[in-house]
Amino acid sequence: MAHPVNPALGGHLLAYSGVPTFMRQTPTRDLRGVDVAIVGVPFDSGATSFRGGTRFGPRKIREASLALWGHHPIHGVAPAEALTIADYGDAAIEMASIEKTMANITAEVGAALAQGPMVVALGGDHSISLPLLRAQAANARNAGYGPPALVHFDAHTDVEPGDYEHGTVFRHAIEEGLIDPAATIQVGIRGSLYFPDDLNVARQLGIRVLTIDDCFEMGIPAVVAAIRETVGDRRTYVTLDIDAADPAFAPGTGTPEPGGFSSYQMLQLMRGLKGLNLVGMDIVEVSPPYDHADITALLAANLVFEYLCLVALNRA
Amino acid sequence: MAHPVNPALGGHLLAYSGVPTFMRQTPTRDLRGVDVAIVGVPFDSGATSFRGGTRFGPRKIREASLALWGHHPIHGVAPAEALTIADYGDAAIEMASIEKTMANITAEVGAALAQGPMVVALGGDHSISLPLLRAQAANARNAGYGPPALVHFDAHTDVEPGDYEHGTVFRHAIEEGLIDPAATIQVGIRGSLYFPDDLNVARQLGIRVLTIDDCFEMGIPAVVAAIRETVGDRRTYVTLDIDAADPAFAPGTGTPEPGGFSSYQMLQLMRGLKGLNLVGMDIVEVSPPYDHADITALLAANLVFEYLCLVALNRA
Amino acid sequence: MAHPVNPALGGHLLAYSGVPTFMRQTPTRDLRGVDVAIVGVPFDSGATSFRGGTRFGPRKIREASLALWGHHPIHGVAPAEALTIADYGDAAIEMASIEKTMANITAEVGAALAQGPMVVALGGDHSISLPLLRAQAANARNAGYGPPALVHFDAHTDVEPGDYEHGTVFRHAIEEGLIDPAATIQVGIRGSLYFPDDLNVARQLGIRVLTIDDCFEMGIPAVVAAIRETVGDRRTYVTLDIDAADPAFAPGTGTPEPGGFSSYQMLQLMRGLKGLNLVGMDIVEVSPPYDHADITALLAANLVFEYLCLVALNRA
Amino acid sequence: MAHPVNPALGGHLLAYSGVPTFMRQTPTRDLRGVDVAIVGVPFDSGATSFRGGTRFGPRKIREASLALWGHHPIHGVAPAEALTIADYGDAAIEMASIEKTMANITAEVGAALAQGPMVVALGGDHSISLPLLRAQAANARNAGYGPPALVHFDAHTDVEPGDYEHGTVFRHAIEEGLIDPAATIQVGIRGSLYFPDDLNVARQLGIRVLTIDDCFEMGIPAVVAAIRETVGDRRTYVTLDIDAADPAFAPGTGTPEPGGFSSYQMLQLMRGLKGLNLVGMDIVEVSPPYDHADITALLAANLVFEYLCLVALNRA
Amino acid sequence: MAHPVNPALGGHLLAYSGVPTFMRQTPTRDLRGVDVAIVGVPFDSGATSFRGGTRFGPRKIREASLALWGHHPIHGVAPAEALTIADYGDAAIEMASIEKTMANITAEVGAALAQGPMVVALGGDHSISLPLLRAQAANARNAGYGPPALVHFDAHTDVEPGDYEHGTVFRHAIEEGLIDPAATIQVGIRGSLYFPDDLNVARQLGIRVLTIDDCFEMGIPAVVAAIRETVGDRRTYVTLDIDAADPAFAPGTGTPEPGGFSSYQMLQLMRGLKGLNLVGMDIVEVSPPYDHADITALLAANLVFEYLCLVALNRA
Amino acid sequence: MAHPVNPALGGHLLAYSGVPTFMRQTPTRDLRGVDVAIVGVPFDSGATSFRGGTRFGPRKIREASLALWGHHPIHGVAPAEALTIADYGDAAIEMASIEKTMANITAEVGAALAQGPMVVALGGDHSISLPLLRAQAANARNAGYGPPALVHFDAHTDVEPGDYEHGTVFRHAIEEGLIDPAATIQVGIRGSLYFPDDLNVARQLGIRVLTIDDCFEMGIPAVVAAIRETVGDRRTYVTLDIDAADPAFAPGTGTPEPGGFSSYQMLQLMRGLKGLNLVGMDIVEVSPPYDHADITALLAANLVFEYLCLVALNRA
Repeated sequence: MAHPVNPALGGHLLAYSGVPTFMRQTPTRDLRGVDVAIVGVPFDSGATSFRGGTRFGPRKIREASLALWGHHPIHGVAPAEALTIADYGDAAIEMASIEKTMANITAEVGAALAQGPMVVALGGDHSISLPLLRAQAANARNAGYGPPALVHFDAHTDVEPGDYEHGTVFRHAIEEGLIDPAATIQVGIRGSLYFPDDLNVARQLGIRVLTIDDCFEMGIPAVVAAIRETVGDRRTYVTLDIDAADPAFAPGTGTPEPGGFSSYQMLQLMRGLKGLNLVGMDIVEVSPPYDHADITALLAANLVFEYLCLVALNRA
Repeated sequence: MAHPVNPALGGHLLAYSGVPTFMRQTPTRDLRGVDVAIVGVPFDSGATSFRGGTRFGPRKIREASLALWGHHPIHGVAPAEALTIADYGDAAIEMASIEKTMANITAEVGAALAQGPMVVALGGDHSISLPLLRAQAANARNAGYGPPALVHFDAHTDVEPGDYEHGTVFRHAIEEGLIDPAATIQVGIRGSLYFPDDLNVARQLGIRVLTIDDCFEMGIPAVVAAIRETVGDRRTYVTLDIDAADPAFAPGTGTPEPGGFSSYQMLQLMRGLKGLNLVGMDIVEVSPPYDHADITALLAANLVFEYLCLVALNRA
Repeated sequence: MAHPVNPALGGHLLAYSGVPTFMRQTPTRDLRGVDVAIVGVPFDSGATSFRGGTRFGPRKIREASLALWGHHPIHGVAPAEALTIADYGDAAIEMASIEKTMANITAEVGAALAQGPMVVALGGDHSISLPLLRAQAANARNAGYGPPALVHFDAHTDVEPGDYEHGTVFRHAIEEGLIDPAATIQVGIRGSLYFPDDLNVARQLGIRVLTIDDCFEMGIPAVVAAIRETVGDRRTYVTLDIDAADPAFAPGTGTPEPGGFSSYQMLQLMRGLKGLNLVGMDIVEVSPPYDHADITALLAANLVFEYLCLVALNRA
Repeated sequence: MAHPVNPALGGHLLAYSGVPTFMRQTPTRDLRGVDVAIVGVPFDSGATSFRGGTRFGPRKIREASLALWGHHPIHGVAPAEALTIADYGDAAIEMASIEKTMANITAEVGAALAQGPMVVALGGDHSISLPLLRAQAANARNAGYGPPALVHFDAHTDVEPGDYEHGTVFRHAIEEGLIDPAATIQVGIRGSLYFPDDLNVARQLGIRVLTIDDCFEMGIPAVVAAIRETVGDRRTYVTLDIDAADPAFAPGTGTPEPGGFSSYQMLQLMRGLKGLNLVGMDIVEVSPPYDHADITALLAANLVFEYLCLVALNRA
Repeated sequence: MAHPVNPALGGHLLAYSGVPTFMRQTPTRDLRGVDVAIVGVPFDSGATSFRGGTRFGPRKIREASLALWGHHPIHGVAPAEALTIADYGDAAIEMASIEKTMANITAEVGAALAQGPMVVALGGDHSISLPLLRAQAANARNAGYGPPALVHFDAHTDVEPGDYEHGTVFRHAIEEGLIDPAATIQVGIRGSLYFPDDLNVARQLGIRVLTIDDCFEMGIPAVVAAIRETVGDRRTYVTLDIDAADPAFAPGTGTPEPGGFSSYQMLQLMRGLKGLNLVGMDIVEVSPPYDHADITALLAANLVFEYLCLVALNRA
Repeated sequence: MAHPVNPALGGHLLAYSGVPTFMRQTPTRDLRGVDVAIVGVPFDSGATSFRGGTRFGPRKIREASLALWGHHPIHGVAPAEALTIADYGDAAIEMASIEKTMANITAEVGAALAQGPMVVALGGDHSISLPLLRAQAANARNAGYGPPALVHFDAHTDVEPGDYEHGTVFRHAIEEGLIDPAATIQVGIRGSLYFPDDLNVARQLGIRVLTIDDCFEMGIPAVVAAIRETVGDRRTYVTLDIDAADPAFAPGTGTPEPGGFSSYQMLQLMRGLKGLNLVGMDIVEVSPPYDHADITALLAANLVFEYLCLVALNRA
C-alpha cells in the first residue's frame, strides 16, 4: 500500500494505529484526480424488518480496512498504489427522515461523481442503494449512458411493493429506470417469504434470480458464469448485502438468514467479476452491534478490497 | 401476583417460563374493565444523535418484568392483584416514517385510552412521547382536562428546535399545548450541550430544570420535594428516559452520559411520586443491544413496577 | 402467514414487534381444532456435562420465529395458513427436581396430545425428550400404535447408562419401549467419547449411527436416503439437538463439538424428511446465554419452520 | 503472597499465568496442617427462579483470585503467608439431583473439616449453603458446639417454604437447627416479594432483617454495628450472595435486583467483621455467563480475600 | 463546537457519522497555531500484570469523543471553539519493544511540543507516561522550567522497582527527575499489594498518597483541596488511569480494582482542577476489548473534555 | 480418560468441575517418566499487527480441554491413558521484553525436554515458536539430530524480515537453522500481503506454500498427501496458528482472515498426520477476549487432542 500522505492517519501498517479512514486514504471532499471515492452512508432507519445498527457500519468497515495489508495475493495488484483513492467521509443523515436522507445521499454522491471518480459506498441499510443509484443514473445520463446492469448479492430480493425501506429498493430502482432488470442478477436468495410468489415477483420484473439452492447445486464457477452472462460487457453496478453470507460468517447484520455462502465463496464470487465493466459498488447491512470480533466487518472490508483490485486491474 | 388467566403465559413465578407479556397479564386489545394497559412502542428511528436499538426495548422490558415477584416490599401492594392490567401489545411501527408511526401511536393509544384505562408505554426512543402526549391530551380534552403536569427524568432536556426526533420532543409538546411547562420539571440533566445556553432554553420555555449537580447537591429527598412542589395536585404524566441513570446502572441506552443516578436513587425518585395524581407514564431509551445481562431492562421493569404500585395505592 | 387473531401479538410482520408467541400464534391451552401445538420446556438441569442456559431456549426460539415471514421458498406452503397452530406456553418446571419436571412434562404434553394436535417441543436440554416420548407413547398406545421410529440429529448418541440426564435419554427411551431402536437413526455423531466403544454401545442397542465422518463422506443426499430407508413409512418422531450443527453455526449450545454440519446442511437434512409419517418433534439444547446475535435461535426457528412445512405438506 | 510450592501453578504474580488454583495455593485433598481449605461447589440446579450459570462460579473466582497481589492495604496482612491455605478442588456434583449433590457436599466438606481446617466455599447457587451448614453443624457438634450465628448478605431472604432450592435454604437450615436464628442477620434485602409478608416471615423465624433501605438510611458503620451486636462473640458463619451488590457492580449473578450495595460498601461490610469469631464462609451466585469483564468474579475474589485477612488477623 | 474544516470528518453533530478524529478536529502533524494536540499512543505491552487491549484505547476514545456535543454545561465554554485543537494521530508503536516504542513516543511528542501546543495523550497502558514525561521535561527545560507537579488518579501507585512496564513508571519518572515528588499526589489508591509496605514506598519517594478510603472519608471537596494544596501554582501535569473509577463505571480496563470512584466523582475531581497551571495530560488504561457499550471510553472522552474545558478557561 | 491422581483437579468428567489443568493431568515440573508435557506460554506482545489477548490462550485451552471426554472416536485411543501426560504450567513471561521472555521459554522448555518428554506448547502469539524451536533444536542436537521438518498451518507465512515478533518467526527459525525449509510446508495461506511477492519470499526460502486456494482446489486428501510427501519420515514439528481456520470457526484470534478452513477440515488435516514422526507441537494465536462461547478454544483443545492421539498411536 502506498504510504499515506497524512501521517496522522497512521504511517505504519498496524491495524490498531491511526485515525481510521478507509485504508488510510486521505479524508477529503476534493476529488480532483481521484479514481475511487469511498463514501459512508450511516443510515439505518430503512431497516424496517428486523434489526438496525448499520449506522455504525461505515465506521467499522473503515476500521477493518486497516487490517488490509495492501497487495492482493492472487491478482498481484495493490489498489491503493494503482489507484488514487480518497475517503469522502459520510453523507449527511437525518435518521428520522428517509426522504431527506435520500435527497442528501443523491446530492452528495452526485457531487462526488461529478468530480470524476468511481464511488464505492459503505452502508447503512439497503435502502441507501436507491439514492446511490439515482446519483449514478444522473451521472451516467450526463455521460450519455443508460441504466447499468446490476449484480446483486443478497439473501433477499428486496423488490417488495411499498414505501421506501430496505425491502423495496430494487422495485423502486426498476420503476425509476435506474437499473436494467434484464441485466440484473440476484445471487444467494433464500429464507421464508412474505408472499407465496415473492421469487416470481422478482422474475416477473425481469430479474434473473439465483437462489442459494441454485447456487449450491450449480457450484460457484457456474454462478460466476451466470453473472457474467447476465451482465456481459454492460456498465455494471454491484450491490452487496452482507447477509448473502451465512450468519456464521456474517453475524453482524440486520436480517440474518441461515443457509448462506461461506466467506470463501463470497471472495470467489467477487473475484469472479474480474474484467467486468464495473462502474460502482455498495456494501450494505453490516451491523456492528450484532457483530462478533468484527468478523463481519473484516469480511466486508475484504470484499471491498477485492472490488478495488478489480477496478485497479481494469485501469491497468 | 394474581394467577394469570391464561396458563400459556406461565402459571408459575419463574422468570424464564412462559410467553412474556408484561407481568404475565393478558394480551388483548379489549380493555373494558382494565385499569392499566401496557403498550409497547418499538420505534427507534427518532434516535438521531447516537445509538439505536430501542426497538427491542418493549420486548426486553416485558421479559424482565417476569422477574417481578408481585408484592412491593415497602408499599405492601401487589399491582397485578390490586389492578386489572392488560398487555395491549405494540403500536404499529413504520420505521422509515416517523410521521406515520406517530399517527399510528396516537391512534392506537387513543383507542386504548378511550376504553378507560391508564396507559403505560414502553419505548422505543424518546420521540414516542410526543404522539403519546397527543393521545393523552385528546383524551383529557374529552374529559374536560387541560394539559397535564410533567415529571421528566432524563440526562437531556429534549427541547431543541427542529423536526421530530428524540431531542426535540418536549419543545413540540409545549408548542402543541400538550403539557404545561409551568408544571414541568426535568430531573437529572447533564452532559455536554449543543448550544451554550441549552439549559436556559429549557428554562425560558418555563420548565424547572434540576441538573444532576443540583440533584446531588440537594439530595434525593429535596429533589422529591421539588418535584412535588412543581406538579402539586395537578394531573401528572411521568416520562422516564432510562439515561437518567448512570451508564454503569443502565448501559443499555442510546445516548449514555456519565455522572448519573444510581439504580437506588432512581427507585427513590419514583417512590417519591407516591400520592401524586398520576395519569400516565412512559419509559424510553432502553436499548437491549447495548445492555449487559439485562440490567438496564431489569431496572426499567422495576421502575414501571414502582409506578404501578403508586397507581394501585391511589386506587386503594 | 395468516393474520393473527390477537393483534396484541403483533399485527405486522415486523420481527421486533408484539408479544413473542411462536410465529404470532394464539397462546392457549385450549387445543380443540388445533393441528400443531408448540410447547416450551425451559428445563436445563439435565445438562450435566458442560454448560446450561437452555432454560431460555424456548423464549428465544419464539422470538426468532417472528423473523419467519411465513411462506416456504421451495415447498410453496405457509404452515401458519395451512395449519392451525397454537402456542401452548411452557410446561411447568422444577429446576431442582428432574423427576417432578419429567412428570409435569409428560402430564402437560399428554394433556395437549389428548386434545388432538401434534406437539412440537422447544427445549431445554435433551433430557426433556424422555418425558416427551413418554407422552407420545401413551398417546400412541391409546390409538393403537407402537413405539415410533426416531430420527435423531445430534453430535452425541445420548445412550450412556445412568440416571436421568441429557446423556442417557435414549437408552432410557429404548429400555422403556418408547422408541423402536431398529427404526432409529442418529446423524452427525462426533467428538471424543467417554468409553472406547460408545459408538458400538449405540449400535448394540440396535440404532443406526451415522457419524459426521460417515455423513461428509456419503454426502447429504445419501444421508437423507439412509434416514428414509431406516424409518420407512413408520410413524416417525424427530429429535434435533442443535449441536448437530457446527459451533460456528450454532454457538449457543451446551456441549459444542467442532466439526459439525453447516446451517445449509441442517436445512437440507430437514427438507429430506419430506413425506415421512411425522408424528412429533423436539428441538433441544439451544442455549441463548452462549448464543451470538441469536444465530443459533434463528437456525432453530428455521428448522422448526421446515418441520412445520413438512407437516403442512402432509396434511395438504 | 508466599511463593507457591508448585511452580506449575505460576511462580510469578501475573494474573494470566499458571493453572488457576485459588491464589496459587496447592490443589490437594490432604489438609493436614492446613488452616483454610477453599472448596468449589459448581452446582446451579438450585437456581429455580431466574438464571443459572453459577456452575462456572468457582472456576472464575479462582481465576480472579490470581489478580490478588497478596497483602491487604489496610490490615497489613498477607493471608497466604499468615495462613496455610489449600485448594481442595470441587465437590462432586450431580446436576440432575439436588439430593445427591447435597449429600456429596456434606460428605466432602465434612471430610475436609474433619482434617482441621476452616472451609471457605465458592458457589454455585445459594442452595449449596444447606449442605455446607450441615457439614459445619456436624463438625461443630463433634467439638461440642451448637449452631453458629449467621451473617447473611443478600438481596433475598431465602426463607421461603418448599423443597430444596436456592430460595428456601435458610428456612431449612433453621428447621434443621443448623443456625441460630436469634443470632442471624440478613443485610441488603430488597426487591419485589412473592408473598406480601415475606419480610415478616423471616422476622418471625427470629432473623434480624436489614433491608437495603434500612442500610442506606443507617449508613454502613451502623449496619456493621448491628451485625456485631447480633452475632456478638458467637461462632459465626458468613454467607454472601453476590447479589447483595447492585447489578452495576455484580451483573454476573442469577437474580439481580436493582438498588443494592456498591463494591466499596461490600468491602466495608466485610471489613466490619474484623475480630468476630469466624468459623466458615461461602460466597454464592456468581454467574460468569452473565458477568462482564469478570467484574463480578473480581469483586467476589476480593471479598474472599477480605475474609481470609480477617481469619489471618484472628490467628495472629 | 466549531464546524470542522474538513467535511469528510463529519459536518453534523451525529456521533455515528464521519471519520473519528478527536472531536472532529483536523488530523495533521502541522501544529503551527495549534493550542492543543491530541496524540494517541496505542501501546499495551507494558501491561504486564493482567489484561491488555489498551492498544485500541486511542481509537475508541476518539470515537466516543464524537458524542461530546461541544459546550460544557457548567463552565459555559466550548473547547473546540475556544481553542485550536488538532488530532496529531498516533505515535509509532513497536509492540515487541518497549524501548523503541518509548523512544518513538518521546521523539514524536517532543516534535509536537516543539511546535508549541499542549499535548493531551490517549493511551495505551500506563507505561507510556514515562516517555510522555520525558518529552514534557525536555520541552520544559528548553523553556527554563523544572519538573512539573503531578496529579495522578489511579487505583495503583505504579512506583514499584523494576524494568519499564506500567507498574514502575512513576518510580522511573522520579529517578529521572521528570516530576517533582513533593508536588505529586496520587488519588484513589486501593487494592491488594505486592509488598506489605507498598504505600509507604510511594510516600517515602515523597509522594502524597490518598487511598480510596482517605478519599471517601474526606469527601471529594476535601480531596480537591488536597490536590490544589499539593500542586499549588506549579506547572502541573495530569495523569489519569481510568481504573481510578470503579469497575462498574469503567469495566474496560486492564487491572480493575473494586471499590473505586463513581463516574460523577471522577467528573468532580477533574472539575476540581479548574484554574491550576495545567501543562499536559494523559489518560490511560482504557481497554476496549473489556469495555461494555463503550461506557469506559465515553467516561474517558468526557474526562478529556473536562480537561480541555479547563485549558480553555485558562486561556480565556 | 484415566482417573486423575489428584482429586482436587476434578474426579469426574464434568467440564465445569475442578482446577483446570490440561485434561486434568497433574501439574508438576517433575517430568520423569512423563511422555508428554503440556506447557503454556501466555505471551502476546509479539502480536504486533492487530489484536492481542493470546496471553489468556493457555488458560482457556486448558479449560476447554476438560470437555474432552477421553477416547478418540476413530483412532480408538485415549491419550491420557496411553500416555503419561503432565501439565508443566506456564513459562515465565515478561510482557515488556520479548528477548527475556524468549530466553525464559527456551530455558524452561529446554529443561522440560531434558527430562525426556515431548513438549506440546499452548500460546500465546506465534512469536513463541522461535524460542520453542530453539529449545527443540538444542535438545535434538544433544541427541544427534538435525533440524526437524515443519508442518505449519496458518493464514500467514510469518517469514517477513525484521525484529522478533509474530510475523517474522519462521524467517528467524530458518536463519538460525532451527527448521529445514526443504521439509517445511505452509498450509492455508491467504489474505492481503504487505509486499507484492510475499508468497515468493516464502518459496525462495525453500518452503512449500499451499495457499487456501490451492487447498480448496486440491481437496483435503491431496493436501494431506502433499504434507506427507514434504516431511516424509523426518522428525516433524507441527505449528498450528488457529487463524488457519476461518473466523467463523475461530473468531478468537488476533489476525483473522476470511476464507479459511472449517473446523472439520482442521480436524481432517490433523488426522492426516497419522504415523508421521512427530516430535513436538505448538498451537498459537487463540485469543479468548475475541472468542465467542469458547468455540475457538474448544477447537484448539480438540486439535491438541487429535495430536496427542497421534502420539499415542505412535507409541502403541
